[in-house]
Amino acid sequence: MTGTARSIHDIDTVALEGTEDAPELVIIDQTLLPGEVVLERLATREEAWRAIKRLEVRGAPAIGVSAAIASYVDAARAHAGLVEGLSAPADAPAMLARVAETCDYLGGARPTAVNLTWALARMRRAAEAEAAQLEAIGVSGAEAATAIVSRLREEAEAIRDEDVRVCHAIGEAGVELVREGDGIVTHCNAGKLCAVRYGTATAPIYVAHERGMNVHVTCDETRPLLQGARLTAFELMAAGIETCVECDDMSASRIREGAVQLAFVGCDRVAANGDVANKIGTSMLALACARYGVPFYVCAPTSTIDLSCKTGADIVIEQRAAEEVTEMWYAQRMAPEGVDVYNPAFDVTDADLVSGIVTEYGIARPPYDVSLAEVFRRKAEAEAEAAVAPHRAAATEEGSR
Amino acid sequence: MTGTARSIHDIDTVALEGTEDAPELVIIDQTLLPGEVVLERLATREEAWRAIKRLEVRGAPAIGVSAAIASYVDAARAHAGLVEGLSAPADAPAMLARVAETCDYLGGARPTAVNLTWALARMRRAAEAEAAQLEAIGVSGAEAATAIVSRLREEAEAIRDEDVRVCHAIGEAGVELVREGDGIVTHCNAGKLCAVRYGTATAPIYVAHERGMNVHVTCDETRPLLQGARLTAFELMAAGIETCVECDDMSASRIREGAVQLAFVGCDRVAANGDVANKIGTSMLALACARYGVPFYVCAPTSTIDLSCKTGADIVIEQRAAEEVTEMWYAQRMAPEGVDVYNPAFDVTDADLVSGIVTEYGIARPPYDVSLAEVFRRKAEAEAEAAVAPHRAAATEEGSR
Repeated sequence: MTGTARSIHDIDTVALEGTEDAPELVIIDQTLLPGEVVLERLATREEAWRAIKRLEVRGAPAIGVSAAIASYVDAARAHAGLVEGLSAPADAPAMLARVAETCDYLGGARPTAVNLTWALARMRRAAEAEAAQLEAIGVSGAEAATAIVSRLREEAEAIRDEDVRVCHAIGEAGVELVREGDGIVTHCNAGKLCAVRYGTATAPIYVAHERGMNVHVTCDETRPLLQGARLTAFELMAAGIETCVECDDMSASRIREGAVQLAFVGCDRVAANGDVANKIGTSMLALACARYGVPFYVCAPTSTIDLSCKTGADIVIEQRAAEEVTEMWYAQRMAPEGVDVYNPAFDVTDADLVSGIVTEYGIARPPYDVSLAEVFRRKAEAEAEAAVAPHRAAATEEGSR
Repeated sequence: MTGTARSIHDIDTVALEGTEDAPELVIIDQTLLPGEVVLERLATREEAWRAIKRLEVRGAPAIGVSAAIASYVDAARAHAGLVEGLSAPADAPAMLARVAETCDYLGGARPTAVNLTWALARMRRAAEAEAAQLEAIGVSGAEAATAIVSRLREEAEAIRDEDVRVCHAIGEAGVELVREGDGIVTHCNAGKLCAVRYGTATAPIYVAHERGMNVHVTCDETRPLLQGARLTAFELMAAGIETCVECDDMSASRIREGAVQLAFVGCDRVAANGDVANKIGTSMLALACARYGVPFYVCAPTSTIDLSCKTGADIVIEQRAAEEVTEMWYAQRMAPEGVDVYNPAFDVTDADLVSGIVTEYGIARPPYDVSLAEVFRRKAEAEAEAAVAPHRAAATEEGSR
């Protein structure tokens, strides 16, 4: 079920491998990083559920892609008769029932993860749409079940490929901000380990690296859970990028000393006015950047930009368990018993501290009400074009038969 | 040698106890905090040396007072014939030799600790001055040795009492800034645990508490060594003050939410222009306070104000071991092997972010070149008065005979 590898840079965080009949979801077990790189090959939905639950795979996009692939893997294995105690679904209704059950089950692994719900709903809709289409053209029985499995594979691959495309586009847009020799600071992990490849905040860094540019990156360790020290520093080093770790309270000092020319962070939600909710500590990094004149950029797929949310004040911030702060990882307690603890998961960075928001459709700059609308205009345009393009391709194909 | 106590609030961090002949240095073993409160009763100079070396007692003032008391304790025990393998020093030269040897030895426990060197030099000078005076009036032999030991006790007690007086005066000055119900934030430990009583940054808080005011205090945990979580939160809770711990990257968020009305921090060095060198992270807290309009005060005994240092740029910042950042306390490694680490011990907070500097001679406010000069004028005045006062007292005493 598991295997070891030496560098994660050339491995996708989440991958679909194996054969048509016996596909596998392959992930890097992030609970073992940075100490050990272990690939997990997950064949059953129970294994996938546990991996998501135990945070072996984490980060919104990576969770979504994992769940999509896992739901396909289960359907394919059920179809091939490889699911213990289950006879292969013999027709479309049986297959749809299995898909619905699997999606419900996987969605329960982390009920508050929006991407998980979103990806599984999309898989289920794809299966249902395919079934409806098959019914319309009179295909049924085993042939219909097979077609649904094929459609699920396509959908899982599409979800995965979109993630890679969006991250890469953010990298292409963001790399224009990077100059040779730049010092770049980042907070938390908005890296390839939370997506399939490239990540968001790290995407411009990876694209710069691919283009042969030299940059060095400072990773805030990111208390309380240390994703910066454990994950971001690890993945950047694996890519051969010069990397440095600092405690979060050291950022201003390092910036003041001139070691940083540019900041890239990820985000959980961007409000319509450009306020940014991201991992706790982001706003303090933004304050330090503003103080010393370092441009501060937020890398945000348009899926995280919420124009229905007017400002940061509308964003509810999750409070997390006190033990994350008072007890170190697997170690002794470091704060007095019974002490009150402040432990929000995210903070809001005021729009005036944000130099720009790097999206897959270019960089939005202040005033954000205008620039974010323009980003969505470009997105709608691109989607309209893409919706036309497959028809054109299909038409051409038809014509050439 | 050791004993346990339930609360540290009514115990001095460093104390002189025992009998005239067999005195003891009593400290709270801070390496066991916040888990356990253990008092150590140190009788020999070797025990004191180990306690300073192992950081069982830490914080510049506490180290200085400990060393002063330890040097007296050794002299008194030597005089009483209680030092193994040593016959009691029979006269002034023998006693001075023992004192010199003990001061050299204790000074080696932490060679870079300025207060340690300063306190031991003062003890040695006191012994020498006493010996010179005794010689001038023809006192010698055992009587001289006894008088030197008495003089050492007075000097150790004076050093201890001055620390308490200075901290209390800072508290009296700073309490004027505190309003009923205030939320106060602090960084690192500039508390009673680094002095004898009161501390510096905590002094206004303790004085407010003594006056029956209600305040609640947020302690930055203070990475990498977590003095805020381990020590400051612990001593404030022991005093019955409402206390909350947060990670350093959460300060801006908490301030923004309105939970903080005032900041008090300690300092390692204040430059003539008001730039402040203090524990790494202080400047980020100052930026967050400035952003949200929270007054940011530095509590500084005049001994830490260095007018010969023009600005913060003249202050050399110590870089510390990478392992403090990459390896958690007694736990597994949390950052990739071989990663570069930025780990400065201190940072510089620009004077324009400092609302005021609270000294034992009142609060200095911008412009600091003027206000700090005024503080030193008051200090010189007070010292001149104190130098005259004992003579007056002596004169009165003479007259009343």
